[in-house]
Amino acid sequence: MESAKRRINHITQNLIGVNDVSSDGSNQDTSSQSSGVLEITKTFDTDSLNRYLFPYNRDMRKKLLEVWRSEPLLTQPTFGLSLKEERELSVIQFKRLLSLAKENISIWDIMNDPKKVAAFTQCYRLKNIATSTLFGVHYSLFGSSILFLGSDEQRNYYLPKVENLDLMGCFALTELGHGSNVQAIETIAEYDHSKEEFVLNSPTITSQKYFIGGAAKNANFSVVFAQLKVGEKMEGVHAFIVKIRDDSGRPTTGVKIGDCGHKMALNGVDNGRLMFNNVRIPRESLLSRYGGVNKAGIYSSPINPAIKRFAHNIGALVFGRYIVSLGSVSFSSVALGVSLRYAFSRKQFFGDDSNAQEKQLITYATHQKRLIPHLANTYAVHFGNEYFIHLLAEKDKKNDKEIHIVASALKSYASWATRDCLQDARECCGGQGFLSENLIGIFKSETEIYTTFEGDNVLLYQQVAKFILSEARRKPVPEFTVQSDSQKKQCDRKYLTSFEFLTTAMNNRLYQNIAYVTDKLTEAIGNGKSVMDAWNDSGNIILRLGIAYSEKFILDKFINGVVNCPDSTAQSVMTLLVSLYGLNIIEKDNWFLRYNYISTDQSEAIYQLIPELCKEIVPHSVSLVDALGFDGNELGATISGDWIEKNKY
Amino acid sequence: MESAKRRINHITQNLIGVNDVSSDGSNQDTSSQSSGVLEITKTFDTDSLNRYLFPYNRDMRKKLLEVWRSEPLLTQPTFGLSLKEERELSVIQFKRLLSLAKENISIWDIMNDPKKVAAFTQCYRLKNIATSTLFGVHYSLFGSSILFLGSDEQRNYYLPKVENLDLMGCFALTELGHGSNVQAIETIAEYDHSKEEFVLNSPTITSQKYFIGGAAKNANFSVVFAQLKVGEKMEGVHAFIVKIRDDSGRPTTGVKIGDCGHKMALNGVDNGRLMFNNVRIPRESLLSRYGGVNKAGIYSSPINPAIKRFAHNIGALVFGRYIVSLGSVSFSSVALGVSLRYAFSRKQFFGDDSNAQEKQLITYATHQKRLIPHLANTYAVHFGNEYFIHLLAEKDKKNDKEIHIVASALKSYASWATRDCLQDARECCGGQGFLSENLIGIFKSETEIYTTFEGDNVLLYQQVAKFILSEARRKPVPEFTVQSDSQKKQCDRKYLTSFEFLTTAMNNRLYQNIAYVTDKLTEAIGNGKSVMDAWNDSGNIILRLGIAYSEKFILDKFINGVVNCPDSTAQSVMTLLVSLYGLNIIEKDNWFLRYNYISTDQSEAIYQLIPELCKEIVPHSVSLVDALGFDGNELGATISGDWIEKNKY
Repeated sequence: MESAKRRINHITQNLIGVNDVSSDGSNQDTSSQSSGVLEITKTFDTDSLNRYLFPYNRDMRKKLLEVWRSEPLLTQPTFGLSLKEERELSVIQFKRLLSLAKENISIWDIMNDPKKVAAFTQCYRLKNIATSTLFGVHYSLFGSSILFLGSDEQRNYYLPKVENLDLMGCFALTELGHGSNVQAIETIAEYDHSKEEFVLNSPTITSQKYFIGGAAKNANFSVVFAQLKVGEKMEGVHAFIVKIRDDSGRPTTGVKIGDCGHKMALNGVDNGRLMFNNVRIPRESLLSRYGGVNKAGIYSSPINPAIKRFAHNIGALVFGRYIVSLGSVSFSSVALGVSLRYAFSRKQFFGDDSNAQEKQLITYATHQKRLIPHLANTYAVHFGNEYFIHLLAEKDKKNDKEIHIVASALKSYASWATRDCLQDARECCGGQGFLSENLIGIFKSETEIYTTFEGDNVLLYQQVAKFILSEARRKPVPEFTVQSDSQKKQCDRKYLTSFEFLTTAMNNRLYQNIAYVTDKLTEAIGNGKSVMDAWNDSGNIILRLGIAYSEKFILDKFINGVVNCPDSTAQSVMTLLVSLYGLNIIEKDNWFLRYNYISTDQSEAIYQLIPELCKEIVPHSVSLVDALGFDGNELGATISGDWIEKNKY
Repeated sequence: MESAKRRINHITQNLIGVNDVSSDGSNQDTSSQSSGVLEITKTFDTDSLNRYLFPYNRDMRKKLLEVWRSEPLLTQPTFGLSLKEERELSVIQFKRLLSLAKENISIWDIMNDPKKVAAFTQCYRLKNIATSTLFGVHYSLFGSSILFLGSDEQRNYYLPKVENLDLMGCFALTELGHGSNVQAIETIAEYDHSKEEFVLNSPTITSQKYFIGGAAKNANFSVVFAQLKVGEKMEGVHAFIVKIRDDSGRPTTGVKIGDCGHKMALNGVDNGRLMFNNVRIPRESLLSRYGGVNKAGIYSSPINPAIKRFAHNIGALVFGRYIVSLGSVSFSSVALGVSLRYAFSRKQFFGDDSNAQEKQLITYATHQKRLIPHLANTYAVHFGNEYFIHLLAEKDKKNDKEIHIVASALKSYASWATRDCLQDARECCGGQGFLSENLIGIFKSETEIYTTFEGDNVLLYQQVAKFILSEARRKPVPEFTVQSDSQKKQCDRKYLTSFEFLTTAMNNRLYQNIAYVTDKLTEAIGNGKSVMDAWNDSGNIILRLGIAYSEKFILDKFINGVVNCPDSTAQSVMTLLVSLYGLNIIEKDNWFLRYNYISTDQSEAIYQLIPELCKEIVPHSVSLVDALGFDGNELGATISGDWIEKNKY
């Protein structure tokens, strides 16, 4: 019987050499593609590019990838299992992941060597994403909270237990009635000096902790965020360590635990609900690095007012957002690897002339335009992530605000980009994309929550915008300037794909957006609206500002990454990706025409250029995915390998 | 404890009257919304609008909705079950749905009274969408094939068995190697005159029938599409009835059956693989209305050449596409009903000023813009569907080609619109949207396949484009004309929201696209490309042409539906929806600026107008969903009701 590869060879008429890339990547002739058969070829040194993309902790990475390859347990899928079975397997996998962490990193690395934690995370080769979510909750949310908010004693006591799983933690911040507005949570912890205890209460139904990963079944400890009340004074939101289950697994006194129930995906995570009724916890339960109650019953904090403490108390979320952005690169890589390999091996015919020969999916202009731009976005996010981790690792000149904003921008951009990538990859594989064994579909469902957890994207983009506006007040941005008339006449490829053109376009979109939003807010307030109403009613333009900043920021980091790449062949291919990333933004946002930044002729040229760029990237597309570290069949998706052979009877 | 409703009332400062809508719907003052609390109010006679939207078979509808309400079995969800349990419950539900069909409609209605079948389908109140998919496979694909392709004897013999479930059928068209290009299927049926039998074979692995709903477990019969060979002559694709399982449930001689395995959703449907090895079936198995082999072994057909027969043989797919479009309206309605009701009752705060009062989600401009346009699209599709069913019911002047094109346009537009609607509704509900009990998430997964099954959207839009191009050759369309200079200066709301402006804009986009695609194809062919290569390389602009036509077509039908609505209040609200539908298209496609159809000032005005329209529609939004027939809590999504009460311990 024929295999996919033999089948392609069989109909080969003339193979296309795809090994030569000119320095600007532009003059490769791929116009003859449609008359022959495209083979998957390594068009540059993918190992070398991989080293450039992931330069640190190479030895650990190598060792970890070997573990992931050699231990089937870690990559065992959960689809088709009952809810109970899925949760059980997920916990087993989580435990192995935790021991793997202990063998390779330390929880202190989140603070002291975040790159190492990043490298550890980038080695995940998951099929069951719940595994990493359980790990993230226990290690990066529960553990990080103790690391960042705990006193030295608390750190020393709890962190080894986190690493050894002597306890399993969850992270109880969100309430039924309060998600993004964390400062308004209702849970209250009132200090009872007579007993040196805090009394924890959920005063309303809406104050119950909700959607708490690990709470329904697995966790016996939780970091609980609550309004601290000492005497008559409210001291703001603080974090407490609370034992929620006793050693037999029953809820502790005063704690009610519910199960959030079945979800559209990620059912390996046991999301639960928590309610507190006069739960008494010792004075030492307050994570007291930034504020605590002393033996005399007096609250003190090195940080005042309370609003500033708050920022510290939810600082642990920043790393979680970065992890989402890392995961986005990984899941997009898998989806692109699978869908591209399938597109090279599956033939199709779009038309109704029965005599025409079927062609590979990848040779269709529509297919190219559906998949290739996501490859550009994935690389773009990767370089944004690299910038972030360097920023986080540079402890000396750490800028908390910038870190927060960059994490928000990346998380929002990456999670929406991955959502769209998985969607297109699924559709490009048709029914095969829907089958769980091909991973795209289940990844799509399991990562669905990425766009709204760890901070809703719409909200995070607005926070980015707010930061940009306040920065602009501090240090005014240049005035928005459209291209000159002579620039607007330049419709040639060289000009339009140049980093100069793209960067200037993104910068000016940002400048105009800043001025535009400022004007609209000023006008609304001048007309008598409250600041808050003006802000909310302008939400859509503020969101666009946040996006404009984030896309510009990512372009900058992408260009920077490509410019410094030592391998000129890989660099020239990535240069095509940069151009595609930038031009796609221009094509999709009519801002550039609306405010006369580009001419209609340039718009037309860009419209025609995008499919051209996609076509040129096609021969390199699989190599580009491979360089991201996801080499083809590793995860065993049927359609990324010889799917004909695998469908034999 | 407080309920969601009481909670809202409690903080009510000034309620907003939302009962008055002016004739143009434009001068309602909603600017004060943000200072008060918006209540869900019936702003027009929703029953009256429901009667207008669904005018036929009212008695049957009433009766059916009563059944759906009163029989918990029909709406029992399957989430959380194992694969085996999910399949079993789905079959039980399918059986009840089939008996319900028998009580209310006849399978002959698909041909003779398609409106009645539509009405039956519109009454579905499903939680487990697999139920309707199993029904669709057995009734609308297997059954329809016999109805449309079978001889009178075959119809009389099989159709009662379909209705009574004396046999369970599936529909084996797709092959592992051939999806959209049905004419290239490899399965072969060769006539053996000596035994008056056809011999069915799957000559290659890629020729196996793949993703066949019902095949893995449930079905014992299948319509199998195969290349008919009589003597040495290939007569094209024909449909055969094949018994694939014997009475004990084992595959019949020569038939191999495999299970496609777990899917990202819709696991109640047992998709399977079929392979045939010298399967002998009697001469009478060929569905012979449009071609058959007589006792003398001679093939004859009233339709020649073979290519024309082919169209008849897959004609049954048209109704399937329409059903997807009907389903899209239903699932969008549910998702909008749930997410809008939640948005009225859930408060949130976007910012970090802890003193600010939280406001209802629905009062945020971003939230409005994420949800309300989908309401416009849903209504638009509904009126497109209505046009289609009238077309199909008008047997006398039936235009097969138009029916095919309209079904393709609607299916593609509707399935992508619903995909996006469910996505935004999910995100607007955050984690709650992810919980299965709130339906949006599982509907999102279960309808995921709608965009690629029953014809991939990209392919269908290209077929639409092809039809438009050939029509344009037959009867040239008007020349593309931009607005006059004085028109371009009109940036007032009255002009921009007018049906005249919107219709003319959509028409001209279509005209320009036709000319543009024609020019590009001509140029490519002139440069030596084959027609097929020229077509494929222009795939993206051809796709845009298909979309341009479909959106224009749907706008026309939407306007027609609104203009004829007898209730002036409902009409004025729907007028806002039409404007929003049209302006959203203009805002999202930079075609209108690129080809100077609108001025930049108009673009700016539209950019500002869209959130304004969304805000005005908000008070009517729940009434609009209710008029579509999905009254709030009917399906029991927690967050569409009193979710606080339901989360009590």
